[in-house]
Amino acid sequence: MEYLKEKILAEGIALSESVLKVDQFLNHQIDPKLMYEIGQEFKERFSDVNITKILTLESSGIAPSAMAGLLMDVPVVFGRKKQSLTLTEGLLTTEVYSFTKQESNQISVAQKFLQEDDNVLIVDDFLANGQAAGALVDIVNQSGAKIGGIGTVIEKAFQQGGKILRADGHRVESLARIESLAKDSIEFTEDEMHTHANI
Amino acid sequence: MEYLKEKILAEGIALSESVLKVDQFLNHQIDPKLMYEIGQEFKERFSDVNITKILTLESSGIAPSAMAGLLMDVPVVFGRKKQSLTLTEGLLTTEVYSFTKQESNQISVAQKFLQEDDNVLIVDDFLANGQAAGALVDIVNQSGAKIGGIGTVIEKAFQQGGKILRADGHRVESLARIESLAKDSIEFTEDEMHTHANI
Repeated sequence: MEYLKEKILAEGIALSESVLKVDQFLNHQIDPKLMYEIGQEFKERFSDVNITKILTLESSGIAPSAMAGLLMDVPVVFGRKKQSLTLTEGLLTTEVYSFTKQESNQISVAQKFLQEDDNVLIVDDFLANGQAAGALVDIVNQSGAKIGGIGTVIEKAFQQGGKILRADGHRVESLARIESLAKDSIEFTEDEMHTHANI
Repeated sequence: MEYLKEKILAEGIALSESVLKVDQFLNHQIDPKLMYEIGQEFKERFSDVNITKILTLESSGIAPSAMAGLLMDVPVVFGRKKQSLTLTEGLLTTEVYSFTKQESNQISVAQKFLQEDDNVLIVDDFLANGQAAGALVDIVNQSGAKIGGIGTVIEKAFQQGGKILRADGHRVESLARIESLAKDSIEFTEDEMHTHANI
């Protein structure tokens, strides 16, 4: 996805060899048109899968998921990191550790929103160690629904999450795959267009 | 906004005289088409104001804001309730108390995303006591940007937030205004279409 890669190169900042800051367009300020194009790209990449629901995690997964849901005509559910007073019963829960925030969170999803006949597309902004996506996989497995695929906006391909999820048999589509953030430079892999075909 | 009111009546649940649960389409599961229509309605209601940026709060404000930003062709910024390790410098911060969650949160927005020549539309899912919207007003005031208006999806008109914000001179547009949640029944006000003209 060329436009996304151009945005990452123009506005992303390699803060360290493992941290990419994209607060200009994805996880603090949002570029709605880019989110729409990301939604379009997810729709195309999963056009052969009959997705019935999108599952993401608050907060940075919501905007690309909402656009994908609009274009794919399916509801979006976002996992919550804190329990609300108005959402207490019938929850599926699991633990997710954030390396960026250095803390463990319980995430929860109301059971009623994931039915056994659902085919779920898991969407997140980043795929790094695979903690967040793995937690969403666990939630879907608890619900009895099927996982149609995993779509991530940016995959840090030098970390292990993508490898682990693909080894577990998941179809993972990442719209930009980063090979390296070393020396303040952002390098993409050369196979980012259709990663599932090349793994 | 008739479709929103129909959704609230069909799928909203009055949990108590002050709590309305809308997790079916707004703050846990999201109906992307409804979010798009909400974005369209905000665009129309603020069509006479030259909005340059939308400011909202994670997480439930993000989906309607992203759609409004797409249609109004402006970036969206969401205030964060926790500080990220990758977002530490140049932050505008304020406190917001959530009656629903019974806790106080510091919210923060990177200063660089609100410039003095910005005309900001503040968007949130609910307007009740006005804590969240008031915190976003405080953030914009700190930045030196102007506030073009405040758009909320659901206003609990029997609580004080809308009254306070309008008394402070803000233009507040709420797409559905609820008069009462008493006796497990959801009653709308009769003036929800153009609240700013009637106050």
